[in-house]
Amino acid sequence: MQKLIVDLQPVGRRASIPAGESLLSAAQAAGINLISICGGNGLCLECRVRLINGKLSPLSLVEEANLDESDLENGIRLACQAIPLSDVKVDIPPESLSAAQRLQVEGQEEVVELEPQVLPRDLTFPPPSLADLRDDLTRLRDTFGPSLDHHLSIDTQVMVQFSEQMRAWNWKGRLAIDQDGRVVSVLPDREELYGFAVDIGTTKLAAYLVSLENGRIAGKQGAMNPQIAYGEDVVARIAYANQGVEHRRTLQTRLVDTLNGLLSDLRQAAGVSQAQVVDAAIVGNTAMHHLFAGLSVRQLGQAPYVAALTEAINLPASQVGLDLAPGARIYLPPNIAGYVGADHVSMLIATHAWEMPGVTLALDIGTNTEICLSTGSRLLSCSTASGPAFEGAHIQAGMRAAPGAIERVQTIEGSLQFSTIENQLPVGVCGSGILDAVAELLANGVIDSRGVFRYISERVIPTDRGGAFLLVPGEQTGHHTDILVTRKDINEIQLAKAAIRAGVEILLIEAGLKAQDIEHFIVAGAFGTYLYLPNAVRIGMFPDLPHERYHQVGNAAGIGACQMLVSRRKRAMASEILKRMEYVELTTHPKFSDTFVDMMALKRN
Amino acid sequence: MQKLIVDLQPVGRRASIPAGESLLSAAQAAGINLISICGGNGLCLECRVRLINGKLSPLSLVEEANLDESDLENGIRLACQAIPLSDVKVDIPPESLSAAQRLQVEGQEEVVELEPQVLPRDLTFPPPSLADLRDDLTRLRDTFGPSLDHHLSIDTQVMVQFSEQMRAWNWKGRLAIDQDGRVVSVLPDREELYGFAVDIGTTKLAAYLVSLENGRIAGKQGAMNPQIAYGEDVVARIAYANQGVEHRRTLQTRLVDTLNGLLSDLRQAAGVSQAQVVDAAIVGNTAMHHLFAGLSVRQLGQAPYVAALTEAINLPASQVGLDLAPGARIYLPPNIAGYVGADHVSMLIATHAWEMPGVTLALDIGTNTEICLSTGSRLLSCSTASGPAFEGAHIQAGMRAAPGAIERVQTIEGSLQFSTIENQLPVGVCGSGILDAVAELLANGVIDSRGVFRYISERVIPTDRGGAFLLVPGEQTGHHTDILVTRKDINEIQLAKAAIRAGVEILLIEAGLKAQDIEHFIVAGAFGTYLYLPNAVRIGMFPDLPHERYHQVGNAAGIGACQMLVSRRKRAMASEILKRMEYVELTTHPKFSDTFVDMMALKRN
Repeated sequence: MQKLIVDLQPVGRRASIPAGESLLSAAQAAGINLISICGGNGLCLECRVRLINGKLSPLSLVEEANLDESDLENGIRLACQAIPLSDVKVDIPPESLSAAQRLQVEGQEEVVELEPQVLPRDLTFPPPSLADLRDDLTRLRDTFGPSLDHHLSIDTQVMVQFSEQMRAWNWKGRLAIDQDGRVVSVLPDREELYGFAVDIGTTKLAAYLVSLENGRIAGKQGAMNPQIAYGEDVVARIAYANQGVEHRRTLQTRLVDTLNGLLSDLRQAAGVSQAQVVDAAIVGNTAMHHLFAGLSVRQLGQAPYVAALTEAINLPASQVGLDLAPGARIYLPPNIAGYVGADHVSMLIATHAWEMPGVTLALDIGTNTEICLSTGSRLLSCSTASGPAFEGAHIQAGMRAAPGAIERVQTIEGSLQFSTIENQLPVGVCGSGILDAVAELLANGVIDSRGVFRYISERVIPTDRGGAFLLVPGEQTGHHTDILVTRKDINEIQLAKAAIRAGVEILLIEAGLKAQDIEHFIVAGAFGTYLYLPNAVRIGMFPDLPHERYHQVGNAAGIGACQMLVSRRKRAMASEILKRMEYVELTTHPKFSDTFVDMMALKRN
Repeated sequence: MQKLIVDLQPVGRRASIPAGESLLSAAQAAGINLISICGGNGLCLECRVRLINGKLSPLSLVEEANLDESDLENGIRLACQAIPLSDVKVDIPPESLSAAQRLQVEGQEEVVELEPQVLPRDLTFPPPSLADLRDDLTRLRDTFGPSLDHHLSIDTQVMVQFSEQMRAWNWKGRLAIDQDGRVVSVLPDREELYGFAVDIGTTKLAAYLVSLENGRIAGKQGAMNPQIAYGEDVVARIAYANQGVEHRRTLQTRLVDTLNGLLSDLRQAAGVSQAQVVDAAIVGNTAMHHLFAGLSVRQLGQAPYVAALTEAINLPASQVGLDLAPGARIYLPPNIAGYVGADHVSMLIATHAWEMPGVTLALDIGTNTEICLSTGSRLLSCSTASGPAFEGAHIQAGMRAAPGAIERVQTIEGSLQFSTIENQLPVGVCGSGILDAVAELLANGVIDSRGVFRYISERVIPTDRGGAFLLVPGEQTGHHTDILVTRKDINEIQLAKAAIRAGVEILLIEAGLKAQDIEHFIVAGAFGTYLYLPNAVRIGMFPDLPHERYHQVGNAAGIGACQMLVSRRKRAMASEILKRMEYVELTTHPKFSDTFVDMMALKRN
């Protein structure tokens, strides 16, 4: 029977289904929880998906009756009605998923001294009269200016609010003004000021609405980065952007639109107006930073991979189209280099890694893993190409951390047990699961330190590509397909862990230190939080240090953004980090290749 | 001797010349300022005209050598070379006129010392390499920054150009940088920098493309203000804008679109790219200024009519959507008050009225007439509500200065004669025509100083509204309708002239001076240029001063904008004028009403 491939985005799963079955069946086969309250009968209209490419059956009567013109223009279909006529690629909008993917929006929060960039001032003005013909700006300056340290300034977008609202409010209101004397927003008396903090991950966005008057996080929300539709990883997205100005603008616009949606949701839930959101702090890796700010990413796609700029910038919100108060600026902290971004700086601030007494190492694992070593006197950083294996890519049964992903593998009473996200039937393995699996296979002697299978279990299946381990037989899975860990999968993990560990070692060499000198080893980010540390040590990805020296800190980059949002002192720290940081280029480092090869072995060291 | 008639279009003048004389002589005889730098010797090639009909001498050697094929197809000739062989009709293209017609884009130009806000710098940068991983901005700063007085800054819209173009141009190019250290544009090596100057009139726009490197006006063009579709005068337009934010934005957008069209035409004619246009200076009355800048005009529509702001501002071109270089700013000179705008300041700069030795009065007549009195030590200004009569409104047969408008009325050999624009059949009367008509009726005793008709001519027709004078019988007009000057029309002129003269008198009173003390009386603007001065004096609109004290200066506001575009010193003057100017509010002035009533009388004084 003919089989068709359905590629489901942004989750990144593929299903192979018999011709004639619907997209809903494909999603179910792939273990993806598309909402289908009516059971696929075309009644609930919840299973909306968007065709990216390929050919589907013509519109059904149900679809004709229920999809509007803009749906059709956007390629929206009902998954229970649409039947693939070719291999297809479809996008599943978040609202069609019954369980959102696990989004990391929490770190270890601390109380930061409030010192925001934008402050409120309640004011009453004398109204104009035939005896007092001062223009509105002069009236504002004369009343307000003398109490400011800086020369008062105001953009025309804010000035128009001042002229209109002060008349509507009888010359009494609140102004939000920044530390440079710029009026950012015109508000009714006593309205609370808020800020918007975002961590733009290549895959996920984490957004926070924060009170600038008490530092409280009023709301937080996650979403997928919509740029995924234009390239799964940073390299693909840079390639897309470089195809033309319009492409770069599309990536920017899609991202900003999604951020505006998140902000609007957060504002509505908290009862906050746009005029009340007077500041923003946004972090991301250098490519995300550049795409958001409208900078060139061409040079990030070709050696020597330099950033367009590294220093902190303040961008008018209106310039990028972010729906903040009319005069608001967006603070973007400094990047360190082309592949060590502002998100890394933000993490260093949130974790204090850069200023801790004693030797501290902090890293955030991703396709590129950024590593910082603080010796107490020096700050060193590098980026190492660890690849996407821990994000589920390049792994045969790999998937992102979504419901049905095997996230944990343990040996219990001599047999390999697993658990999945939300305890659903397994459909694949995410990063922490594959790390566990490799470590357990090693511990059980199923593989040796070179990653080679030993045929000591019937679950080791010989293949012409070096064998595979049967982690879950098809009959126990959500899609009736065996879940295997292959020789190639193990090799991907070896490459990843060697890259990470070699990066750590090169920084230590540069600082004249040994691994055992590391007093604090900080692991940030989503994968870093879920990974089982003893297994990372067991395969030699992390050095063999006493357990208490390790700290798993969650999405510290997002928390750092919240801190910089409310604290000018934290912003100053970011600039100090940029100034002090010594960036170490690994690709030209004389000892990197040898160290990398040494670190391929799966062993505690 | 045989005489030939030369009909000169679109100016609409005829000359009668002896056979054998050139078209240039004909134009000179008709008082038309054809450009002829070389004095008619066939050297400058500026006096290009187009033959519409009739017969000219064969091409001269000079013409054969200098006119190309498309010129010849279009009937282009050099006026100094071509000799009529019959009555002829020729068209004079605007670029061949040293003073353009109706769309007044020339005043009295002077050479201004070049001191532009934006300067070019040709630079070569070391390209990045694995041994030199500086980000692009740091590379820019390190190479360029040390030679600057200010901290170098660059918007992301310009930074993206830098990153992309420097790679395309092999790290060699020209940067345009302003006096604050801001990079405005990234250009190929040695490309000339230009600026865009505009006078936004309520009715007409005058636009100029000016070289910032030699101060030369590379092109000029006029257009109607497209906002006219939303309201003929300032008050109507303010009312429209106040109906909602979208209305205000429409007025802004339509205006900006038209300016972009003018700029695009000027750029194309001069072979100048958008990136080369690195600065702009734009003037207009306060309402035009506010609508262009996106400020509120609500308060301009209600007492006490204050401006949103008066100080000079620099607006990012991208904020209003003007198609300049990506980082360009638009300089908007200060306004004085709600009804004394930046165009008045610009006129004072271009005419030097504010800084002349001796008592100087300068005014620009419109629906509101702005008047400035400079005593040598004090600067005073006011705005007086002179109404739209001189724009042809509220006058029974009134019209704008367009073809067929009676623009001149004279008593010749005891009878009232008139001439029309472009010598077409009369269809109405424009401002200068109605002023002449009233003055001539007064001089001939047809009306008395109160404006009351005396029935001494059969052309005075009794009506129940105070009578009317038959200026042109219907059978001689273009629309077969009598053109009348009514008692009400005369009253409108009385109100207008009383308002203007009372404004002048109040400023004199404030300064402790008499009209006879005025040493220079400067009349600016289109109507001010076309009006027949002796008649303005005859009816008492202007004081009875020796003729040589009067100066009609054309569109000085536009020329002032060009000067401020290329000279920071002129911009500083504008701010100094704002600082020094004493604004006199007429509506509450204790002597205004009495003076106004006194000045209603039509008499020399």
